[in-house]
Amino acid sequence: MSHSERLDDLTLEEKASLTSGADFWTTKAVDRVGIPSVMLTDGPHGVRKQREGGDHLGLADSVPTTCFPPAVALGSSWDRELVRRVGVALGEEARAEKVGVLLGPGINIKRSPLCGRNFEYFSEDPLVSGVMGSALVGGIQSQGVGASLKHFAANNQETDRLRVSADVDERPLREIYLRAFQRVVTEQQPWTVMCSYNRINGVYASENPWLLTTVLRDEWGFGGLVVSDWGAVNDRVAGVAAGLDLEMPSSGGRTDAELVAAVGDGRLDEAHVTTSARRAVELVDRIVAGADPDATYDVDAHHALAREAAGRSIVLLRNEGEALPLDASGSGAIAVVGEFARTPRFQGAGSSLINPTRLDNALDEIRAVAGERVTFAPGFALAGAPDGTSTDADTLRDEAVTVATGADVVLLFLGLPAEEESEGFDRSHIELPAEQTALLEAVLDVNRNVVVVLSNGGVVRTSGWQDRVPAIVEGWLLGQAGGGAVADVLFGAVNPSGRLTETVPVRLEDSPSHLTFPGEFGHVRYGEDIFVGYRGFDAKGTEVAFPFGHGLSYTTFSYGAVEAAEHKGGIRVSVAVTNTGSRDGREVVQVYTGLPGSAVTRAIRSLSAFTVVEIAAGETETVTLDIVHDDLAYFHPQVGQWTVEGGEYVVEVGASSRDIRGSATIGLAGDDLRVPLGTDSTVQEWLDHPRGGQLLQSAIDSAPGSVMSSMLSDPETVKMLGSMPLERIASFPGSPLDADGLDSLVASANS
Amino acid sequence: MSHSERLDDLTLEEKASLTSGADFWTTKAVDRVGIPSVMLTDGPHGVRKQREGGDHLGLADSVPTTCFPPAVALGSSWDRELVRRVGVALGEEARAEKVGVLLGPGINIKRSPLCGRNFEYFSEDPLVSGVMGSALVGGIQSQGVGASLKHFAANNQETDRLRVSADVDERPLREIYLRAFQRVVTEQQPWTVMCSYNRINGVYASENPWLLTTVLRDEWGFGGLVVSDWGAVNDRVAGVAAGLDLEMPSSGGRTDAELVAAVGDGRLDEAHVTTSARRAVELVDRIVAGADPDATYDVDAHHALAREAAGRSIVLLRNEGEALPLDASGSGAIAVVGEFARTPRFQGAGSSLINPTRLDNALDEIRAVAGERVTFAPGFALAGAPDGTSTDADTLRDEAVTVATGADVVLLFLGLPAEEESEGFDRSHIELPAEQTALLEAVLDVNRNVVVVLSNGGVVRTSGWQDRVPAIVEGWLLGQAGGGAVADVLFGAVNPSGRLTETVPVRLEDSPSHLTFPGEFGHVRYGEDIFVGYRGFDAKGTEVAFPFGHGLSYTTFSYGAVEAAEHKGGIRVSVAVTNTGSRDGREVVQVYTGLPGSAVTRAIRSLSAFTVVEIAAGETETVTLDIVHDDLAYFHPQVGQWTVEGGEYVVEVGASSRDIRGSATIGLAGDDLRVPLGTDSTVQEWLDHPRGGQLLQSAIDSAPGSVMSSMLSDPETVKMLGSMPLERIASFPGSPLDADGLDSLVASANS
Repeated sequence: MSHSERLDDLTLEEKASLTSGADFWTTKAVDRVGIPSVMLTDGPHGVRKQREGGDHLGLADSVPTTCFPPAVALGSSWDRELVRRVGVALGEEARAEKVGVLLGPGINIKRSPLCGRNFEYFSEDPLVSGVMGSALVGGIQSQGVGASLKHFAANNQETDRLRVSADVDERPLREIYLRAFQRVVTEQQPWTVMCSYNRINGVYASENPWLLTTVLRDEWGFGGLVVSDWGAVNDRVAGVAAGLDLEMPSSGGRTDAELVAAVGDGRLDEAHVTTSARRAVELVDRIVAGADPDATYDVDAHHALAREAAGRSIVLLRNEGEALPLDASGSGAIAVVGEFARTPRFQGAGSSLINPTRLDNALDEIRAVAGERVTFAPGFALAGAPDGTSTDADTLRDEAVTVATGADVVLLFLGLPAEEESEGFDRSHIELPAEQTALLEAVLDVNRNVVVVLSNGGVVRTSGWQDRVPAIVEGWLLGQAGGGAVADVLFGAVNPSGRLTETVPVRLEDSPSHLTFPGEFGHVRYGEDIFVGYRGFDAKGTEVAFPFGHGLSYTTFSYGAVEAAEHKGGIRVSVAVTNTGSRDGREVVQVYTGLPGSAVTRAIRSLSAFTVVEIAAGETETVTLDIVHDDLAYFHPQVGQWTVEGGEYVVEVGASSRDIRGSATIGLAGDDLRVPLGTDSTVQEWLDHPRGGQLLQSAIDSAPGSVMSSMLSDPETVKMLGSMPLERIASFPGSPLDADGLDSLVASANS
Repeated sequence: MSHSERLDDLTLEEKASLTSGADFWTTKAVDRVGIPSVMLTDGPHGVRKQREGGDHLGLADSVPTTCFPPAVALGSSWDRELVRRVGVALGEEARAEKVGVLLGPGINIKRSPLCGRNFEYFSEDPLVSGVMGSALVGGIQSQGVGASLKHFAANNQETDRLRVSADVDERPLREIYLRAFQRVVTEQQPWTVMCSYNRINGVYASENPWLLTTVLRDEWGFGGLVVSDWGAVNDRVAGVAAGLDLEMPSSGGRTDAELVAAVGDGRLDEAHVTTSARRAVELVDRIVAGADPDATYDVDAHHALAREAAGRSIVLLRNEGEALPLDASGSGAIAVVGEFARTPRFQGAGSSLINPTRLDNALDEIRAVAGERVTFAPGFALAGAPDGTSTDADTLRDEAVTVATGADVVLLFLGLPAEEESEGFDRSHIELPAEQTALLEAVLDVNRNVVVVLSNGGVVRTSGWQDRVPAIVEGWLLGQAGGGAVADVLFGAVNPSGRLTETVPVRLEDSPSHLTFPGEFGHVRYGEDIFVGYRGFDAKGTEVAFPFGHGLSYTTFSYGAVEAAEHKGGIRVSVAVTNTGSRDGREVVQVYTGLPGSAVTRAIRSLSAFTVVEIAAGETETVTLDIVHDDLAYFHPQVGQWTVEGGEYVVEVGASSRDIRGSATIGLAGDDLRVPLGTDSTVQEWLDHPRGGQLLQSAIDSAPGSVMSSMLSDPETVKMLGSMPLERIASFPGSPLDADGLDSLVASANS
């Protein structure tokens, strides 16, 4: 007998107790009927399990586990198979640590480069976010461990995150901010979804029935449990009624008592408590079924996977004159400059902070390849640097200049110090620290052959210097094995294949959300509508530093003709890709769609499909990608449903959003969405309607000389008055149509 | 006995009858008690009174009256005295035509250059719009004729104007879109305010109690009558309850009967009908009192005023090498090219279309000065050109090139044809017609000395060619005497002093509203927040073609040191302005303010005061401008009131928003706005509060070892968790604060 079958045996108090935590990380058992406690712990790029007897939040003291690359890096692989393998490894570690649910992945959209938690998210694009999130959830859950899809929803900033209302219109909410969640829920059925702290259009996510029940369960078919973000419950009774199943952490029993009281005085239907308790027990059943007391994991293999994933996450932004890769067997002097090379920044701060099983740094890994050729200077101070390192900026810079002078190449490690980005607060700018750009200038003064390697969770401005260095390696935050991965890329052991999942703007001010981020007075207005990220840069024709989808390889790829054909209401796209260089490599083939002349607001191009293809030097692979029908749809807010507009779609295939290599057009009939005429339809809408136009004309002809007749006989007047609803014009003196006449006209038109 | 004192004698049916029109342009009389009918007619830059027996709307057939420059031009004078004089003349004409209310001015904000009715509006800035509108209303009403301030409110586009909901957050709504209305209402008490067609945040303006009663009457003290825009009534009963007093035009009695029925069945309090009827009769009283059956006006004098106003409205955008003014007594050949010179576009289409008393054109006026030196070619075809003019583009262009070849100067009249902008629809681009830019290129190929004279109601893109012509004269739509005014400026009889009241963007896409104009599905989201016009261009650091406030003169002005001092809670600014050239001239002195480091979202600079000063050549005038306290305030949406923030204000004085000539800083204490602490105030807000911080610390100290204590003892943790509301953190296990403890903490902190 499963635990969920025992639900009828439970008292209201026991059921209520199952819907909130026992402490910070575990649920409450009901020993009387043998329902055990289960553990949920932070993720998502590692298992952050509080060590026994540690601090309350366990932020500083957790058991060692593998720190895989955070989402900002992992997503840059664009590789669902790789991400799934990382998910499997995470699931293995969670199971070995007796963790029932790993709190991740986070798939919120990067609305602004300033969001302090961008390092935990995948992309500014909902397709990339959804596909990557889906792959990770699939991997985790394959090991009998639950994922927790978070933060649901519209949690796109840290500023005032516990109160702020994300005020978002329905199309951007559906098409940008909920879309990735929809994909993961429908594809993977995550065991849990974590509701976010913030409000959405004024209503807390934790007590939002539209979000937690109408959309998540009724529309998407979610069958799992909704858990609150830690401390996200505002009104527990309203939350349970809205579809929040589990409050975390414990409220010490206070809010359980509120539930019982609310049932008692009729404010809450006991069925809501029963439903949430059932979901809680169903989760326990799944966890118990998936648990394995003997489970372990291979620490070395996971470290190797972390290195592989990191290597695939690195984005080669620039490589003029084939500055990279370096020759591993060469003899030139290599100056490594920048404390990040020795003291890596490999993950972000906050609830996702992993205590790694080991930690590689780039300096050691470079030395392992190039040995005595390598010299090092920290260049600037960082917290966590070895004791005895100078902290005087001038001294550090002078030392670095000395090391750089005369070297064949300078590997300059720049990035954001840990204190500049974290869960809990947003950045106010996207600049590198001034002492680092000063160091860059000083080094450039003595050596032009500078390869910049970046360590950063959120994008940084490169426009001040990007054209003056031969190569830029975007290393993001790469997890515990990132040091080796960087060396792999620098020396060509790995041919880079990462691609930007977010635009690097020329200036922060160019960002589409700039004017309305992060809001004030408890509200943030998503004023840029659907034009988030590259959709906005493209719509405004704004120059960018590096476009969405960009990333170089040590080889080159050419594209053949794009073929597009209708396929099951969507589009099947084929293109031959040739590796025209001398190294094997991976290309991320990106397919964008647009509909010029669309009747609705649209991005010029939206990513609609992508895949990673590995092609040997000189070889050609024909890649076939399916754009499914639903990924061509927009959300019609008046009819309240997704619909595909008919028309001539432009299908573009590119190596980035601004490096389109070929295109095709394909006509689609689209869905048969009928928006009926009404009395408040405009004169122009009536005249444009095949049947309505005739009917209106007949009514007018029956009253020659009326206002309506004189108005509609003159094309110029129609142009000016065409936007008038029929019922208004019909109310003018001398109208041939009274209320009954209008109603019968409407009935005839729609019949 | 006034008519309003007879209200008690009226039946409900009679009262209801007074609150809607008798026909298109008049109200209903109640002969039984001697209440007469009064007439309202379209404006605002002339009196558009339907001719007897004309078409129903009178769009095409109205009595001749003076067509003054439309608002786009008149506002460019920045001259409140001039605008008031035009208002006086409008009032005289209305009185002479027995018109009781002139339907204007329109003071809506130019949110997008695409709005088809921008020619009827003053500015993208609320101060300019309000000051100009106030001056016009003052002038009109000084003649015993009512103005109708329109379109109230947030009617900033023509697309779907009868249904669209302008979805605007409260700060931009208050600070940008309502601000000019607030100024005019409080300064002038217009006899009527006209509610707009559109909805505001979902509620029709015509039935919006917040707009028509709470804001307009309760907050601003409006004592006049609210009339519907023609056809703007959606639900008459809801409208009357909300504060709509007069429905226009007639509904043929249908909606009067709805009012009576609604009173009968209790859905509407009769007091609402009585109130509206009383306001209608008060308006009749005012009109009767102001009427003069013998009134006439001086057609010639008004034409002269129209010419003077037009001359002051012209904006000299560019004048390299002193290409202008032309020498009236010179001998060089002048080629006038462009049909607009002969067939002037002098006003916009729609309800404001005036049948002018006479009509000057620039070609005749230029010939009057320069006689035989002038040759002419139409260059392109326009509707309304003299019969027999070719309509073949190639022929027209070739003729123009012939005329331009060898001329000393080419006066090239370009602009928007009437069919491209009108009430009733918006533009989809800001380009000049392609045949005109082709003509410009063809003329430039044979003659570099091209002076472009523009005729346009909305701004046009100049960025493709502006740097290749020596001079650009922005002539807008200048009314019936614009032809002479253009000649006055070209030959220096008038030294131009107009200034842009809106930004001319480099590209349409740069416009801050670009991504969200004009909306769809019945909604338009004002996503750019307060960053309308130059506020947005400045906030994003976007290059512009010509900035807000820009306009050249034939003389030059220098500015002395800016002095700023606190004055009655506002700022008194003084600056010496010297005419450093050799001609007398007018300078528009513009004062902008900003508050760097403000706690709230702000424009970098906002226009806060301006004046026009006439300075003889070589002379210096010291200009003193007062920025009143209220014009420094922002609207605090949580507290629901205007407040001046304390801080170091930067006061900039400039010749345009991007030609700042001097600045000063002035510290203001600001208003004493207290936002009390609550249980939902964040930990950081508590810690920042002088009293709350101490109290919270004491509470924490009383429970050493608790979660809250461990959280708040570490600065890094505070940085991450500081945004957590106190009540949330207090609900974590082991909290020293229960609900009662929190409440008493709040009470103590706010005491």
